[in-house]
Amino acid sequence: MSRRVQIRGTGLIGTSLGIALTRNGYAVSLADPSPTAERLARDLGAGALAQDVTDPPELVVVAAPPDVAAGVVAQALAECPDAVVTDVASVKGAVLDALIAVGAPLDRYVGSHPMAGRERSGAAHARGDLFEGRAWVVSPSSASSAHAITLVEEIAHAAGSVTSRMDAASHDDAVATISHLPQVAASIVAAQLRNLDDHALALAGQGVRDVTRVAASDPRLWTQILAGNAGAVAKVLHSVIADLGEVAAALEGLSAPEPGADIGSLEVVSRTITHGNAGHARIPGKHGAAPTAYESVTALVPDTPGELARLLADVGAAEVNLEDLRLDHGLGQPFGLAEILVVPAAAERLRDALRLQGWRVLE
Amino acid sequence: MSRRVQIRGTGLIGTSLGIALTRNGYAVSLADPSPTAERLARDLGAGALAQDVTDPPELVVVAAPPDVAAGVVAQALAECPDAVVTDVASVKGAVLDALIAVGAPLDRYVGSHPMAGRERSGAAHARGDLFEGRAWVVSPSSASSAHAITLVEEIAHAAGSVTSRMDAASHDDAVATISHLPQVAASIVAAQLRNLDDHALALAGQGVRDVTRVAASDPRLWTQILAGNAGAVAKVLHSVIADLGEVAAALEGLSAPEPGADIGSLEVVSRTITHGNAGHARIPGKHGAAPTAYESVTALVPDTPGELARLLADVGAAEVNLEDLRLDHGLGQPFGLAEILVVPAAAERLRDALRLQGWRVLE
Repeated sequence: MSRRVQIRGTGLIGTSLGIALTRNGYAVSLADPSPTAERLARDLGAGALAQDVTDPPELVVVAAPPDVAAGVVAQALAECPDAVVTDVASVKGAVLDALIAVGAPLDRYVGSHPMAGRERSGAAHARGDLFEGRAWVVSPSSASSAHAITLVEEIAHAAGSVTSRMDAASHDDAVATISHLPQVAASIVAAQLRNLDDHALALAGQGVRDVTRVAASDPRLWTQILAGNAGAVAKVLHSVIADLGEVAAALEGLSAPEPGADIGSLEVVSRTITHGNAGHARIPGKHGAAPTAYESVTALVPDTPGELARLLADVGAAEVNLEDLRLDHGLGQPFGLAEILVVPAAAERLRDALRLQGWRVLE
Repeated sequence: MSRRVQIRGTGLIGTSLGIALTRNGYAVSLADPSPTAERLARDLGAGALAQDVTDPPELVVVAAPPDVAAGVVAQALAECPDAVVTDVASVKGAVLDALIAVGAPLDRYVGSHPMAGRERSGAAHARGDLFEGRAWVVSPSSASSAHAITLVEEIAHAAGSVTSRMDAASHDDAVATISHLPQVAASIVAAQLRNLDDHALALAGQGVRDVTRVAASDPRLWTQILAGNAGAVAKVLHSVIADLGEVAAALEGLSAPEPGADIGSLEVVSRTITHGNAGHARIPGKHGAAPTAYESVTALVPDTPGELARLLADVGAAEVNLEDLRLDHGLGQPFGLAEILVVPAAAERLRDALRLQGWRVLE
């Protein structure tokens, strides 16, 4: 008999998970406060309506917004006395604390956080492969039973994710630095652009585009996420404020007229960039492997349909594996630069091969 | 007769400019404090050695590091009494102030700043197309002659750049926000990653990768750039520190046990993300055009040579112009997601066409 999973909350995450688990043979049932949302999820192939299913679920997945997740988990634990319950909220400590406060049966609860999402929300944008190849943090408490942990890891794997275990506090500290801080920093850097004039904005290069890309994120969702991890995020923001303050003071020393005001300032500025180098180098590379220093091969690509494809076909024909690709569009020009990242041993061979095919390859 | 340009400083920028101008028929001469560097630039086709040229230059381009640029400009103005002199330092106020301080003949000086560079420095990485399609700020002072301005704009155009005029203070304020702040923010966010453990780093997603990409930049160059624009950068850093402090205080209010500590906090957090949305939306789109909301079409691409090329060939065959492309590598999986950005009108047609070719296209 197939495993019975009930999903409570049929937004993007809940519906996507329902589709993935249904495809993998699970018996999924769906519930949402909105009758329209749960019916849409059913129609998208995410499972049956919970009201039409009589057998009780073995696992309940709460995919509600972060600020109501704990309440829905507590309710599910009470209503389904034999089921394991998990949630997928992107913060874990606040949910666990709320469950402890109401005396919920923690042996049957395991928190989880699939590191997957889209720039759009709602069941309409759900997809069964949303979790494929993504990290999924499984966050047991000390009270969680081995059975409960196994069940949650099982559905994460069934959805295609790679699981790792972290307790709630470690998870929240980690995402505060690796996810929530970059969002706040990007938003605040982007906010400084609001009052620039058009001439200044025309100088925008790839750097500011990269740094501010996530600043386009949804304010409603991010308000919930940041509020749900408020303590951990505040702590890392204070660390950043201290670092920024040190750089600002050093720069003021450099621009001050008093003799000696600049002593030590260059060291602070240089150290800031050097520490950034060191932190950047620790981000894991492709496929979770250790960071690799790829070499870039850059070619000029006319901005007409098919040209980039022709370039990459020539890369493939050279039997070189493209590790990453970046496109850089020239300002006011009908072409772009394609930067192809490859393992260093392949770079020179690729340059030669592309030149032979008539590409303008930069040195 | 061809225009005579002398380039003082044959690093990446000077040598690249020499190659570009030589190709466009200019008579370029080269000088560098390092005999090796100037000979390498000559061998790369950047021009003749200045010591072998007798006719005086009409224009001197100073491509020295930012912290010595003013001195080299003053020297060139003194040694070449009929020549116009420009520099390419990425800060303009400090150079102008230093020239005013020594009473240099400002009618023959026009500052400039080509917005071009590479992640590598030195003549060996120079290329003649470094400036093609890039913005090049021309920064006259009130004393600059019309002839001097024209001459500087002429070589910028000859190198393929798109020029815009800004006075030194406006330029420095603009780059403080649009270039120097993103660098400092990226470096400091990345620096927070130094002390995370490997489990936490494994949660790194595309957001933190984008935000911290420029944190890999060269500390020596960036120390000079930030020091050269110290006052303007310090000012924008204080604005960012104030914004971050407000968010940190709001988050502390949300996590404080006292009743009422959180009043107003959610508004601050929400406003931060909303202001980031607004600033991000002002960044100009491709080719300097107004920002366009592209629609993304995402396909699964096996991680083997030639697959991405095959995908893009199919995009080209559908006669859809790819506006941008992002690759997102799944953690621990032998495939990646290719996100193809196209004009909204073409998105559905492209999805259909790719599915017909057998691609797994996400909804």
